[in-house]
Parts: sequence; C-alpha cells; structure tokens
Amino acid sequence: MEAEKEFIELTFLPDRVTVKAPAGETVLDAANRGGLHINASCGGEGVCGRCMVELREGTVDASPGLYLSEEDFARNLRLACRAKVKAPAEIFIPLESRGDASFFKKAAQADEQVSVESLEPNVTQACLILRPPDPADNTSDLDRVAAALSEQGLRDLDVDLATLRSMPDTLRSSGFKVKVTVERELPLEERGGRPSGRIVSVSPKDDDDSYYALAVDIGTTSVWARLINLATGEALPSVADLNGQISYGEDVISRIVYSSRPEGLKRLQRQVVDTVNKLLERLEGQVPGFRRRTYVAFAAGNTTMSHLLAGVDPRNIRLAPYVPPVASWPSLRASYIGLELEPHTTLKLFPSVSSYVGGDIISGVLASGFYEREELTLYIDVGTNGEIVIGNRDWLTCAACSAGPAFEGGGVRFGMRAAPGAIENFLYDPGLKRHYLGVIGNSPPSGICGSGLINVVAELFRAGIVNKQGRYDPDASPLVREGEDGLEYLLSPAAESAGGKDVVLTEIDIENLIRAKGAMFSGYQTLVEAVGLEMGALERVIIAGGFGKSLNLENAITIGLLPSLPLERFLYIGNGSLSGCTIAAMSGPMWLVANDIKRKMTNFELSETPGYMDKYVASQFIPHTDAALFAPLGG
Amino acid sequence: MEAEKEFIELTFLPDRVTVKAPAGETVLDAANRGGLHINASCGGEGVCGRCMVELREGTVDASPGLYLSEEDFARNLRLACRAKVKAPAEIFIPLESRGDASFFKKAAQADEQVSVESLEPNVTQACLILRPPDPADNTSDLDRVAAALSEQGLRDLDVDLATLRSMPDTLRSSGFKVKVTVERELPLEERGGRPSGRIVSVSPKDDDDSYYALAVDIGTTSVWARLINLATGEALPSVADLNGQISYGEDVISRIVYSSRPEGLKRLQRQVVDTVNKLLERLEGQVPGFRRRTYVAFAAGNTTMSHLLAGVDPRNIRLAPYVPPVASWPSLRASYIGLELEPHTTLKLFPSVSSYVGGDIISGVLASGFYEREELTLYIDVGTNGEIVIGNRDWLTCAACSAGPAFEGGGVRFGMRAAPGAIENFLYDPGLKRHYLGVIGNSPPSGICGSGLINVVAELFRAGIVNKQGRYDPDASPLVREGEDGLEYLLSPAAESAGGKDVVLTEIDIENLIRAKGAMFSGYQTLVEAVGLEMGALERVIIAGGFGKSLNLENAITIGLLPSLPLERFLYIGNGSLSGCTIAAMSGPMWLVANDIKRKMTNFELSETPGYMDKYVASQFIPHTDAALFAPLGG
Repeated sequence: MEAEKEFIELTFLPDRVTVKAPAGETVLDAANRGGLHINASCGGEGVCGRCMVELREGTVDASPGLYLSEEDFARNLRLACRAKVKAPAEIFIPLESRGDASFFKKAAQADEQVSVESLEPNVTQACLILRPPDPADNTSDLDRVAAALSEQGLRDLDVDLATLRSMPDTLRSSGFKVKVTVERELPLEERGGRPSGRIVSVSPKDDDDSYYALAVDIGTTSVWARLINLATGEALPSVADLNGQISYGEDVISRIVYSSRPEGLKRLQRQVVDTVNKLLERLEGQVPGFRRRTYVAFAAGNTTMSHLLAGVDPRNIRLAPYVPPVASWPSLRASYIGLELEPHTTLKLFPSVSSYVGGDIISGVLASGFYEREELTLYIDVGTNGEIVIGNRDWLTCAACSAGPAFEGGGVRFGMRAAPGAIENFLYDPGLKRHYLGVIGNSPPSGICGSGLINVVAELFRAGIVNKQGRYDPDASPLVREGEDGLEYLLSPAAESAGGKDVVLTEIDIENLIRAKGAMFSGYQTLVEAVGLEMGALERVIIAGGFGKSLNLENAITIGLLPSLPLERFLYIGNGSLSGCTIAAMSGPMWLVANDIKRKMTNFELSETPGYMDKYVASQFIPHTDAALFAPLGG
Repeated sequence: MEAEKEFIELTFLPDRVTVKAPAGETVLDAANRGGLHINASCGGEGVCGRCMVELREGTVDASPGLYLSEEDFARNLRLACRAKVKAPAEIFIPLESRGDASFFKKAAQADEQVSVESLEPNVTQACLILRPPDPADNTSDLDRVAAALSEQGLRDLDVDLATLRSMPDTLRSSGFKVKVTVERELPLEERGGRPSGRIVSVSPKDDDDSYYALAVDIGTTSVWARLINLATGEALPSVADLNGQISYGEDVISRIVYSSRPEGLKRLQRQVVDTVNKLLERLEGQVPGFRRRTYVAFAAGNTTMSHLLAGVDPRNIRLAPYVPPVASWPSLRASYIGLELEPHTTLKLFPSVSSYVGGDIISGVLASGFYEREELTLYIDVGTNGEIVIGNRDWLTCAACSAGPAFEGGGVRFGMRAAPGAIENFLYDPGLKRHYLGVIGNSPPSGICGSGLINVVAELFRAGIVNKQGRYDPDASPLVREGEDGLEYLLSPAAESAGGKDVVLTEIDIENLIRAKGAMFSGYQTLVEAVGLEMGALERVIIAGGFGKSLNLENAITIGLLPSLPLERFLYIGNGSLSGCTIAAMSGPMWLVANDIKRKMTNFELSETPGYMDKYVASQFIPHTDAALFAPLGG
C-alpha cells in the first residue's frame, strides 16, 4: 500500500497520455518519460520560460517567479521544468511548448541521393563452397573457413564467440556452402598496409544477396537515419525525428550542463538511443528483418552528440581548455550502447577535429567532395554552434563559432524551430505599409523561425524600417510600436495568432540576430585572412545542415550572414553529415579519407585568434561596418 | 499453491543438503544442483552403475534393471541417474559414489614453481606523466594518452568503451599522472611485424605496481588455477577442484554425449564456469581484489574441454572425420562466458592440434621445453585419452590414443579416482602368501585407483600370480578365487573395506588394464617408427598430468606401459598444462611459441595409421609379446 501511494497520476492533454510520477518529480521529466517533447531551451534550468504548460485540473507544486508572472500563474500557467508533481493533475501542453516532429517527415522526402565512384564497402560477403572434411583433411571448421577466405585475400581475421557457436551447425546444415560476412579493418597508412578484420557472420548460402549498412546523423535537434543496401549501393530513403534529448535543452551547452546532473548523462544517452531505436522501427517498415543483415552503422554528430551517444561524459568539452575526451573513436558494438541492433553490428563514429568541430563536419566535408578539388571553398553549417571550413585539396582549416541560438529561434521573444506555425517568409509592401506572412503549415502564426528571422530583418532593412544599427525607425511603418523591451514590430496581432498573443519582433531580437550573423561572418574572415586571402577569392560556398534548406541566399547576404558573392557560387548540400555516413558505408576507402580529412584539418580557436574580436565588433551592423565588403565581390 | 506443489524437498546425507526439485527430475541432477558431486562415469546413461545411492526415507520413482539387481533394490539402493523425484525423500550418498575434492588440496601444495628466461608479459603497464591540456594543446584525452604510449613503442591501440568512459575523470583526478595497462597483440610472422593491441585500463598512478594474470588448466577431472604477479614474475600457489561436469560423465565422450541433450551444452558450460568461479573465490583469499588488477587469463584444456568452456558445441569432435569446430581460438572476453572476472579481462585459450590432441598438450609441451632441445623426447599424458608427442627442436609428431578409462578407475569393478579410500600401493609377500595395502588417506579401502592398479598387477605378475596373458594362476595364492566374472584376487575382505563388500581384482579388470597400457605403448611405437627410429633412441621421457604423480616407474615398465629405458631418462613435470599457461602469462613471446608448436605438430590418427593395429594386438601381453622390447633398452 505504501509503495502505491508514492506514484501520482498525471494526464497530459491534448494527447491524453497518462504518466505515473513520483511526488517531487518535475512535470517536464514526467512528460518526457511519457514520450512527450516539451521545449526547454535552457535545459530545465527555469530561465528560458519556453516550457509553459497549462494546469487544467488538480494541482502541482509551483510558484510565480522571474519567468512566470503572477498574472500567468493566476491563469494556471506553469513552467514544466519548475513545477513539481504533488497530486493528480491534468496538464495541457500548448502548441508553442511542443516539439513537433511532423515537419521532419516532409523534409526527409526531399532528401537527396548519394553515390560513390566504386562500391567497396568495408563489410563484404564471400560465398564459400567448401570441401567437406574427410579423414585425410580434418582441419577445424574455423581453419577451413579461414583458408577459403584467405584465397579471396581476406586474412588475419578475428571472429566473435557467437559466430563460433553457430558455425559448426551452419556449415553442416548448408552442406558446407556458406556466405561469410567479413568486416575489414582497412589498413591505416602507419600500419604495414596489410588489412585484417573480423568474421561477422557465417550463414547458409542463399539467393538473397542483400545486406545493409546503417547511416545515422545525430543532430542536436534532429536525428536522421537511412539504410544502404551494400549489395547494390542503393541508399534507401532517410527517416528523421526530433532528438529526444531536446526536452533537456536545445543546444549542446545545455545538454552538457544537464549531463552533469545525477543520472543526467545516463538519461541523455538513453534519450538519443531511444530516438535512433524509434527510427530503426520505422526502417523495419522499409526492409523487414534488416537488422539480421545489417553489420555496420556509421554515425556522425557534433563532438558533444558523439560523446552522449557513446555515454562518455562530455563535461570537459565546455571547460577550458576545451578538451574532448575522444576525437577518434574506436569501433563500438552497437548493441552495447543500447541500440536495438544485432550483437554483430559494429558502430563507427566519425572522428572530430576539436570540441566544437565535430564528426558531422568531417562527414559533411567528405560528402561535399571539395577536399579533393582545386577551387577555394567555404563550407558552412549554420546553427547555434556554427562550423566553418575553408580550404581545398591542398589544405583545410576550420573553426567553430558560437553564434548563439538566434538561428534556431532562441533568444528571440517569439523564436521557435522551423515547425508548423513558424513565420518563414515575409514580404513588406511599402505602398500599403503592411506585410504578407508565409507560415510553415499554412497555420496561424505562433512564432518565427531562424530563416524567417533573416527574411523579415532583410526585408525590413530594405524597406528602411530597420537601419544599419538594427534599430527601428518609428516613423517608417505603423506596425512599429513601443513595447515592453523598447521598439517592436507587430508581425501578427493576437486575434490572428495561434497563441492568442501579439507576435512581435523586438530590437533585442534583431540585436541577437546581428550578433549571430556577425559571429559567423567574422569567422569566415578570420580563416580567409589567416591563409593570406580575401573573401572574393572564395570560388565556392557550400551550405550544409537543416538550416540551409530554407535559407534565402539574397536575404542572408543582405543582412551580412553570407559573403556577397555571385549566387551561382553557392551550393546547398542538405544533410551533409548523413550523406557522408552513407558514403563511408558504401566505401571503405572513403572512411579512410574521412580520417585523412580529420588529420589534415587545422583547427582555429577563434577566441584565441588575434583579430577575431575586432572583426566581430566590426560585423555588428547590417550588413557590416565595412561597406566595401558587401559590394558585390569576385564577380 | 499450485506452484508450491510442484517442488519436492530432497535431503542428501551425510551432508544434510536440502534441494527443492521438480517431480520427474533425476536424483543425480537434483544432487548436482545442490553442489554435491555424484560419480556418473557414463554421463547419466544408466549403464555404469557407479552412481548408487541409498534411499533412507521417502520414495523415488525407480525400478530394478540391468545395473541394479532386485536384491540391491530391496536394500533400498537406487541409481541416482535413473531414479526420479516423486515425493520428499532422504537420500544417502555413500563414499564410493562421491566425488571427493579434498585430495586436490594436498596435491596443490606440492605444485612446483615455473619460471621464464625473461619476464615479458603481453600485458604491460606504462606510467605516464602527461602534460595537462592547455589552450595551445587541446588534443583529446585519448590522443594525449595514445601519443605518450607511442613514445614507449605502443602504437595502433584499440580501446574499450568502458575505459573511454572512465578515462576523462581518471586523468583529471590524478593530475594527468596515470598507469595505463596495454594488452599487446603480438605480431604473428605473417603480419607486418608491427604489434598492435588494446588499452585495457587507465588508472591513477599509485605505489602498487602489482598486476596479475590468471592461469587455468581445465582438466576433464579437475580444474586448476593460479595467479601470476606480472610485476614480479611470481607464480602464486595453485588451487584446484573437481570439474563440476564430472557429475555428467567421467570422460570426454560422455560429456560430449551429454552436451547433445536439451540444455546439455549450457549445463556443462555452466558447470565448468562455476568450478573456475569457485577457484577464483579461493584466489581472492590469496590476493584480495585481484580481479581489478587481472587483465588476462590463459587457459588450456583438451579440445572438448576448450569447446565446453567457450560454449561451442563439441558434437563433431566424436563424429567421423573428427573435426573440431575450433583449433585456434580468438581472444575471448572472460566475463562474456560467465567467468566472474572484470569486463577488461581477456581469455586466451591454448590452440589444439586436433580433436584429441588439445591445448593442454600444447601447453605442456611449451612448459617442458623439449621443443627447443636436441634430444629425442617422448612426452606423454596418461589418461582415458592418452596423448603422446615425440620429437625435438626440429620436428614434432603427436597422436591421441583411446586407452579407455582403466587408468582413471573406469571399467574396473572396484575402480575409483585417486581419492581417499583408493588402494594405491601394494606389496605381496610370497612367503606368507599375503599382501600389504597402501590406501590414500589411510582409510579402509573402498576401491583401487589407476596407479594402484598398475602397482597391484605388476607385483602380482612378479609374484607369478598373474601370467603374461593377464590370467591368474589359481594355485599361486590362496587369495585367488572363483568369482562371478571368473577368477579374481581378493584385495580386501568386506569386513575391512569401507563399502562393506569384498574388494577384488578380476581378470576382466586386468584385461582392461592391458588394453589401456597396450594402446599407449603401441602409440609410442607407431610414432617412433613413423620417423624411422627405435624405442631405444628415446633420450628423454616426460610424463605430465595428475596420473603421473603417483606412477611407480618400475611397475609401469613391468606391465609394459612405459618403455624399458634407464630410469634417469624419465622426468615428471606435474601439471604441464597449468605450467604452460603460467609461462604464456609471463611471456608474450612464449605465447607465440605455443602457436608455433601447434603449427609444427604433425598429427597422426592412429586408427588410420598402417601398422598401429598390429602393434596394438602384439602389445596385449605383460609386458609385451616381443620380449626383446623389454630387455633394458638404450642403456
């Protein structure tokens, strides 16, 4: 009876998900255990106010405070990360506070195909027609298989106990006609050049030659996965979902902070593993039973995501001097970290360059192919943590810049992810002095996403409503008004908005955007100058990552996020990280190239690089203090 | 209530061990689950009659049959392997039916020390004083450790996830002063010659340099284990116990048969693992906490024992053409097969030559050292399965011969293992026409062990009571009498015997001994002749294994088990298998030598070798039909 008492029933609306929670647990944690994503940009620290929920019935242990006004409290609003379970309750999670995964389904469909010059996966299958043992040849089963593999150039192979245990029966039931799967450890330059590897499975020879690799991109926000049929080289459609860790903070820093709590690391590890497992369940719909025939998974993520996936404490990533525990990962057993894959499946994580230039960038550079071309290329992945690579086939430099969360809707009063309800497109009519909104999902707007923010500010700048300093001209439009944080622009009045509140863009929001774009731009400048070149010398700009998909190039140049180069020099490669994983799965030599890329990359710590701070300060204008930089360059 | 009903309580005497057993389980299985060893030479097939127990109270489901007379049945005797649990019962396990482990304690004390030329274990520890990271050097933790190891010649190292997870904290809490344990994969000749390996653990530098390897000999009858301090090269005293599998059959064939039953393989695997785990518990008494500092275990056993330990089905070992699943074992994770060792501990099993010349022989040859000397050597391990190696530093040949169970007390009416109550020594006084018995443990005799059998027959042969054909002369001694199997010799009358029965030696017993010694002798002959030599050319005879310990050389020559060579050519090396494991633990290069020995060994299948059968037939006399062979040779 005592034990029963300790658990309290919470019902979450509108999904009607019931969760039994111990008294004292936060509503955020309880919702999360029930599989419901609630925004918590700050990682549940109670300082972002994004996890607002409505108490419909019952009671929770909470009080008003800095991020929850007396008035909101009286309207039964609560911060999910601060409210504690006390008695049975019904709690409504409003749209603004929800992580909505449906957008990813659409984006996944647009996912591009990837190919390699020659299909040469590190996992190969060999069909062996063995001579059955006889009194004149009673070599052991394993030596018999090894000898036949050796004839095919596969030598010095290790083998798992599980394979050894099933092999004798498999050999005999198949009449010594078997298919042997071998994972080759490719020769590193430093080694003698002789490959070795591991016998992964021995199965009866059959007519189905298909076998698979898995490619996984572990993004801070979303996780993508796809299967690659290694027999044909076909990359199957990718699937994606929100990274379940998102309930514990939207950026890597909040995740690292959360991981230092008791059980925090374990919980974050479990979250991302669960997310991948859910994707695997969906892949099961594409290829039933693929797990049995999947022998390797290539995964890429930023340095923090890689550590959290592997369950290695990422704490030191954010402590000076920013040393990651691991840069090059050993091969892991996928099932060991909790992935629902067979014990025979190896997990290979892309190496990272530094604490903030991770495996996803190495993987993206691999996918983009510029590391083997002559033209000088700028490769960027825009986000809270923006990554920049500049180089060509002769040299590679990279840097990470902390742009802040503006591109992902953070630090912006009505900022949100690029999900239904987000204002993405914006057109201002100077004649009528009004605007037209493009909202994701054609629904009433509830906020503004990162690319929308760029589009709105660029258009307001062109219309003279926002000046070079990012300040409003109160006389330029009737929609500019005085708000609680100074001047603001009314994007959508309460009556037309999903949240029942005026959706506005404040000068503080614009300041945050300028800070973010300036951090990126001064990053490119620093790297370009470090090698004695100018921005105009960039022959190619490759944009990777989910953010780039909806980026309006002209607007991004207008606000000074991208350099003022001819538009044809820009190339969007989508999820470069997933593509790089796909390529590594298809080609063992390309996996070695990935490791070469890591070794060749010279990492710049921008904060330690002379001149960066000056460039950053100079970039805090629209588009820049140095107008010459934004005359069309390199035309 | 239903569930309760299904379990029935059995009490085993004299230990008063209570076991709850399901109805229908055999008394043998129930006793075994209670940790009680009952003899079952035939593997519980009901055909050896060695597992006789006495029903003191209650009832079991059993009936008289071929191996249980109506009379014995009426005296409440039952075969434990046939009697099934039906109702609560009290069951007495008589001394004759018990596996007694106490003997091993004594034998372990006599265990000799082993040494190698240079202490060079494949597991090494490096003390690293690392430069802590700073802004100018933010190499990852793993790369920092790897770079320092590389300076000590340790390159291309893999690392476990568990080590990665603990490493960041260990580095910082120790001020970057750590002790790194590395398991080197030693270069095989075929490889490029460059060693690689695995970082096994990273721990704070401390003052205790001790770290350990484990040596384990997995015998069919008994299991031995010892720790080796790799920092000093000291081999600690060994401990031993009966192999728990003994309740499922005394020889490898009955074990293989048992392993084919449902759950049989799993049960036998569990038994041997439990036996080793019990020994580990005892080693904990020698070196508390040794598991944390033990990184590798070397184990050797015959081919069947190796497979059962690893849980690989040994069925094909006894099916023509006698192909073992595995001859060379990959490194295993000790904890994976159930050994109670840390996850960082690797298990290395000695390779075997063939289905019946196993890793224990390779290990023993390694320990004996004759593979690198010039003198022609015969190496033998006498047992149910006798192994023979002949050769020197230039060549090695080997064979297994199925001697039958006589040396271990099997197939002999009062045969038993060398345990308390076994007649071991025997002196006949022709004047008084009576004898003196030497009994292990100085207790009333309950049977005769293998070495005792040799001593008794040799003495009776010298006294003219047994003739060349192994038949009794009824007039030579009043102790020869007519028994139910023909003539027999009364070793001990019922009144003086532990079992309350006359202990006798029958002509059938002697026949079995002659068969066994003849199988061994014709084996040596075949190998010696195969290389064009004669028995007299043998410069050294090395006897290994528990049986050799109590072997009287002169008597063994008298009956024709050993060749008639000067006694100083014989050398007893004790548990060669355990010594070989010890040596491999102390020296990585010696482990490679073990693999070389395996490769150099030419295996003879005696049954397929022309001339063996003729030699076998000719050997079926005492000492041999060819008396010239037993004139003193090579003197």
